[in-house]
Amino acid sequence: MGTTEIIAPEGQPVIDMRRDFAAPRALLHRAHTDPALITQWLGPKQYEMVIDEWDLRDGGRYRYIHRDDAGTAYTFHGVFHSTSIDGMVQTFEFEGAPGHVSMDTLWFEEHDGRTTIHVRSVFQSVEDRDAMVAAGMGDGVNQGYDRLEALIPTLLVQA
Amino acid sequence: MGTTEIIAPEGQPVIDMRRDFAAPRALLHRAHTDPALITQWLGPKQYEMVIDEWDLRDGGRYRYIHRDDAGTAYTFHGVFHSTSIDGMVQTFEFEGAPGHVSMDTLWFEEHDGRTTIHVRSVFQSVEDRDAMVAAGMGDGVNQGYDRLEALIPTLLVQA
Repeated sequence: MGTTEIIAPEGQPVIDMRRDFAAPRALLHRAHTDPALITQWLGPKQYEMVIDEWDLRDGGRYRYIHRDDAGTAYTFHGVFHSTSIDGMVQTFEFEGAPGHVSMDTLWFEEHDGRTTIHVRSVFQSVEDRDAMVAAGMGDGVNQGYDRLEALIPTLLVQA
Repeated sequence: MGTTEIIAPEGQPVIDMRRDFAAPRALLHRAHTDPALITQWLGPKQYEMVIDEWDLRDGGRYRYIHRDDAGTAYTFHGVFHSTSIDGMVQTFEFEGAPGHVSMDTLWFEEHDGRTTIHVRSVFQSVEDRDAMVAAGMGDGVNQGYDRLEALIPTLLVQA
């Protein structure tokens, strides 16, 4: 398994993440934009993910629910601002903490048949950033990327 | 005329702004949300503002055009994320630099009949923040707030 580099710079409302995958850029872009694929990997392991809205265009809204083994639901929504293979921008809001919105920029850097995913998240405040870290965001991201890594061989065969 | 405090902290993708107005919070909230009012003050002086879209709800889109004396148009769009009087969150993108999105949080703090407007803008990078400053954002904000200040007596009479 690969590892996710996660950097939360001191005193800044920012998180930078980076992970390398053995897949071309187009495949990773598809895994991030096709709702039938994203439900197979996004979020903590053993969580069921259901997509309620997925309007993939500039200004389009998404909303999804993660449900854990005990049936507890965690719902998130946001708006896509850019969805091209060169860079995706989307906002992110946990419905349990309304009004606290972060903005993620993703880009895919391909090199020798492998691709590095970069994600920069900016928050309204350092406190919001720290709350996200304290809520276990790092583990959730890592488990999701582990699941994506495990999914890639199947997607490469289908491609 | 009042003055706008504008802070761009070194090395952070952040701008904090603050300005005090002789008006109650509800009036300032209305001046920020009613399209018939916002076109009277937002942006640099002598710019004409035309609203193309203004869908004031969580997930709703806005788009407007500023046109200078020479007829040059500058178009901006974004999405409202929260629009309550306690705090507004909206994204902001200049169509001349697509994919560069910032996110603004506004809140109105009332005290003794006056209200301080706070705005925190977060950017995808320090470079994006610095580009916005270099483009004259401070002057534009100040001129807009001067116009808002001049408009307040009329709005107070109508209220």
